[in-house]
Amino acid sequence: MHPSLTEFITTTRASNPLFNGDLYAMVSEIMEDISRRGDAALRHYSKIFDGFDGSFAIDVSTLDVSFLGVTASLVDAILKAKENIEKFHREQLPAGFSIETQSGVLCVERFTPIERVGIYVPGGTAPLISTVLMLAIPAKIAGCKEIVMVTPPSKQNQINPAVLYAAVLCGVTEIYCLGGVQAIGALSLGTESIRKVDKIFGPGNAYVTMAKQWASARGIAIDLPAGPSEVAIIADNTACPEFLAADLLSQAEHSVDAQTLLLTTDEALIEKVRNALYQFMQTLKRRQIIQKALSNMTFVVLDSLEDCITYVNYYAPEHLIINCRNVWDYADKVVNAGSIFIGEFTPESVGDYASGTNHTLPTSGMARTYGALGVTDFMKRVQIQSLSYTGLLNIAETVSCLAEAEGLDAHKLAVEVRLSKPQNNS
Amino acid sequence: MHPSLTEFITTTRASNPLFNGDLYAMVSEIMEDISRRGDAALRHYSKIFDGFDGSFAIDVSTLDVSFLGVTASLVDAILKAKENIEKFHREQLPAGFSIETQSGVLCVERFTPIERVGIYVPGGTAPLISTVLMLAIPAKIAGCKEIVMVTPPSKQNQINPAVLYAAVLCGVTEIYCLGGVQAIGALSLGTESIRKVDKIFGPGNAYVTMAKQWASARGIAIDLPAGPSEVAIIADNTACPEFLAADLLSQAEHSVDAQTLLLTTDEALIEKVRNALYQFMQTLKRRQIIQKALSNMTFVVLDSLEDCITYVNYYAPEHLIINCRNVWDYADKVVNAGSIFIGEFTPESVGDYASGTNHTLPTSGMARTYGALGVTDFMKRVQIQSLSYTGLLNIAETVSCLAEAEGLDAHKLAVEVRLSKPQNNS
Repeated sequence: MHPSLTEFITTTRASNPLFNGDLYAMVSEIMEDISRRGDAALRHYSKIFDGFDGSFAIDVSTLDVSFLGVTASLVDAILKAKENIEKFHREQLPAGFSIETQSGVLCVERFTPIERVGIYVPGGTAPLISTVLMLAIPAKIAGCKEIVMVTPPSKQNQINPAVLYAAVLCGVTEIYCLGGVQAIGALSLGTESIRKVDKIFGPGNAYVTMAKQWASARGIAIDLPAGPSEVAIIADNTACPEFLAADLLSQAEHSVDAQTLLLTTDEALIEKVRNALYQFMQTLKRRQIIQKALSNMTFVVLDSLEDCITYVNYYAPEHLIINCRNVWDYADKVVNAGSIFIGEFTPESVGDYASGTNHTLPTSGMARTYGALGVTDFMKRVQIQSLSYTGLLNIAETVSCLAEAEGLDAHKLAVEVRLSKPQNNS
Repeated sequence: MHPSLTEFITTTRASNPLFNGDLYAMVSEIMEDISRRGDAALRHYSKIFDGFDGSFAIDVSTLDVSFLGVTASLVDAILKAKENIEKFHREQLPAGFSIETQSGVLCVERFTPIERVGIYVPGGTAPLISTVLMLAIPAKIAGCKEIVMVTPPSKQNQINPAVLYAAVLCGVTEIYCLGGVQAIGALSLGTESIRKVDKIFGPGNAYVTMAKQWASARGIAIDLPAGPSEVAIIADNTACPEFLAADLLSQAEHSVDAQTLLLTTDEALIEKVRNALYQFMQTLKRRQIIQKALSNMTFVVLDSLEDCITYVNYYAPEHLIINCRNVWDYADKVVNAGSIFIGEFTPESVGDYASGTNHTLPTSGMARTYGALGVTDFMKRVQIQSLSYTGLLNIAETVSCLAEAEGLDAHKLAVEVRLSKPQNNS
């Protein structure tokens, strides 16, 4: 393997990327306090961490979105994004099926929604409207009855109006102005004023992620562990350096620990991308974050596009942009990636907001095992079987023989007692 | 709510059913030792816990199943069960889809197999042939390239021949004679002789479950946390008491902590079931286990079958048997249950072995959020999007407006730089 690539992968794919013992201990302490003191603990930590002393609950039923002051152009953008995201996610709704596996043995699969789900929308420097869309829309399509949103207060001690607007539009049923570990504590443990949920979704900082892991170890379902965001780009000499530079920058502006990797077969491309990158950077608002994220930017030249694909499948990036000739030939060989962006006119930002796909994706190499969030993550598979007398007669020997081999003779009895009765026994 | 039912649910659905701090500390110590010392630690714990000092690896390529001495009738039963399980699970293979969410914006979903999976097959009093079938068959259908089975040595210091036979038949590619925490350690951390896997599946005792939770908190994917097995039965006065007694006994013989609940609208039924139960019990091999499990057996009389369904949805049982008139009317109202058995001729044992459905199911109330194991649990969703120049033009304003609202101007730049170039820029 290419030496700098080996180093890159070894560094970014350390075995326990998301686990931090000290953080875990700190989070445990807060979670246990919430479990003991409920709302009092929530108020305590909200005051300490967010300087917030107000009421958590927003009354969704009396909220009039027309008074939120969201601009018409932003409303249009939210509505259009929602439309595309709905179109894509509706296709994910599982149809279920029935099959007679052998004569008289009917087996059915159907999916039912998870009743009460919690979605965490991070605060921070900007309102994450898109996070609301990407979590609440699939929850609604799945049929979840109760969709609970928690999000920390902004500096103005409130929830951003556009975030509120998106939440109401997408069918969120409860909203709490609550963030950090304390929000995950409320969702996973429940308090006097916030009922616990069945599953917790959404991104967050290291504290929030560790709190979700804590909850997960205690049997509360979570979506997937989230680490720093990443993009890998595969490009050949047909790619436009300015496009690549803009893609690298859109990843880098997310956070100082954002990971960016460019794999190319064209050594000359790298210098051109670097030049474009530094030029663009000067014009960007978040250049200080980008400046720091540059230390996580890696450029590697490989012999062939096939090699690029091999390494990408090993690295398993959250986002993958493929910008080369015969692009679909290579795209079809990718098995480990969260979301793939094909061709020169498909920047990652379209998937982040509005193409229709979900932007909640596996990071830190987890694309080897986890996929993008989808409607079925808000549902669960229920199996049904129904046998006729003849069906039971047909399968009896198989079941009895296996039950006997496993030493479970009541299992055998449950079959035999039914067959020993006359067929019209009721 | 009915008082004894309230007590039953409160007791069996305590908030942290699967978490035990002392056990966690003990498991952590072993896992950390395996992480440091690799194979030497595996040998150490295998000797202590299983009295096993042999070689872990079984060479699958040279294993001749015809010499294993599995009886012809057991081979037939395994083959028939495999056929039904394959038929049901093949229906779960996701087809994927493509959709143009708006003109020029193509979005694709496809599922790819997880490359290397580990399956844990418990040892104990009997060979769990069915566990091999229920884990390896969906893995194979999903297309997993490497299927690694670990299972503890029997008292004869080897793997049971029928378990080996089923493993080879179902396409397991690596087999290790290794159990308990040390087996989960090998699969999740990797050692000199056993490479780590991408995801760990399979049931086990409290130690194995806690080791899986430990791995899960560190970002290694697991199937679902498993607690003691459970059945809930709904019956009216049309149900045959002997059938119900046999069903309760087949659950009770699993383990001393197995949970059994009978909900009925017919008070007279309970005495009849009890009588049948004590009569049958005398004839069963595992009556000592059953005797102890009887303390977890609860009978409740409710006013209506609708009430039974309400409580079942709250309790969320692993297995649910519905044995009453108009049975499908009630079955359709169940939303929280792992596997449902409909009508008088459908004992749970058919699903445990051979109807075709999976017997790996959520326990401890997790059927509220988790479903039965299926083929998609051995795969992950990959999203693809590809935009034409026109597609990008059509979506540009939506993306730019949302990126601006979120303060991410490089995201906007990535769209604009592409549109600012003449269309045939390459």
